Amino acid sequence: MVKYPAGSLTNYSQDQTTLFKPKKNNHRKDVVFSDRGMNLEQQINESNKFYLLEELAVVHKKPTPVQIVKVDYPKRSRAVIKEAYFRQASTTDYNGVYKGYYLDFEAKETKNKTSFPLKNFHEHQIIHLSRCLKQQGICFTIIRFVTLDRYFVTPASFVIKAWKAKNKSSMTLAELEKNSIEIKVGFRPTLPYLDAVDQFISKVKLSK
Amino acid sequence: MVKYPAGSLTNYSQDQTTLFKPKKNNHRKDVVFSDRGMNLEQQINESNKFYLLEELAVVHKKPTPVQIVKVDYPKRSRAVIKEAYFRQASTTDYNGVYKGYYLDFEAKETKNKTSFPLKNFHEHQIIHLSRCLKQQGICFTIIRFVTLDRYFVTPASFVIKAWKAKNKSSMTLAELEKNSIEIKVGFRPTLPYLDAVDQFISKVKLSK
Repeated sequence: MVKYPAGSLTNYSQDQTTLFKPKKNNHRKDVVFSDRGMNLEQQINESNKFYLLEELAVVHKKPTPVQIVKVDYPKRSRAVIKEAYFRQASTTDYNGVYKGYYLDFEAKETKNKTSFPLKNFHEHQIIHLSRCLKQQGICFTIIRFVTLDRYFVTPASFVIKAWKAKNKSSMTLAELEKNSIEIKVGFRPTLPYLDAVDQFISKVKLSK
Repeated sequence: MVKYPAGSLTNYSQDQTTLFKPKKNNHRKDVVFSDRGMNLEQQINESNKFYLLEELAVVHKKPTPVQIVKVDYPKRSRAVIKEAYFRQASTTDYNGVYKGYYLDFEAKETKNKTSFPLKNFHEHQIIHLSRCLKQQGICFTIIRFVTLDRYFVTPASFVIKAWKAKNKSSMTLAELEKNSIEIKVGFRPTLPYLDAVDQFISKVKLSK
């Protein structure tokens, strides 16, 4: 039934075999195991893998956009990109589908303890979130306060408003507490952000 | 109101200024102007830009996934990627949001005249389309018969079924005619594939 491309393991198979392979045990004893010193991107990627394999949602991080200039094709070896440049992205990092809804979000970390600096969001991200909102996507940000070990899932509408406000350089912790759904790190998934999405969807349904 | 990143034009601004700039006039006189010798990817990208600027849909092509190994940071110049490798994608090339619906599709060309070879679809694309279908996304393929100058928008459910069928190596033109919505090249957008999507959405609504 399945037509494998000749001689190559698919990404899918790799996902399945490596997903829960134990990592090199270099975490300190005072670190919660489920956290394993991952950064926010790793936490979200692991959560997305979990959601994917459990058939709960299909969300992927977009690859870094790269302009490829020169590629070598060595004999008996795979192609090597020898010259390339980073291009500016035109979207957020993550999108996908969940229960018929389009999801789109950006994830950011800060070491601050009392506020999140708005300059961490780039104009193209704000524009993209606005456009997706107009198309009735479920759009949000995930902000991690590293020092506080707190995670906020915030509707894009609030973030866009704050970003566009004159003389406003950050969202305070109090504002985020008031306008977000706070989530806690778990084991499977690492970061259960779909719990917050479920609440956004309930609100959308109520308003219809 | 708008916080521009220092010294950089955003992608968005570039889009707006270059989108409808006339291209170098090297098309032959017997070529339809709206077509301009573009390949299918270019036709879809132009259509997506049109849909984006008209605020009709937000659909982007995903960047080619690349594993970056070595980057040089020359003085007074931008970073150069000196060693990188192509990675296998785990999704289709295009996704986005339209009227609250999640869209996901793959685009393929063939020079054949009577059938489309199924080996042109890779396993990871078929798996990804199946997963998105389960999440109630609007999933399809756009197939261009280059020699015939015909374009078919085919529901992913049909393509997946054909791909999984034993002893079936291609979809015949007749099958595609029967199971697709055929679209014609236009001027703006170049390839009005959302017309076909509208029909898919009507069917989804009827079945609810």
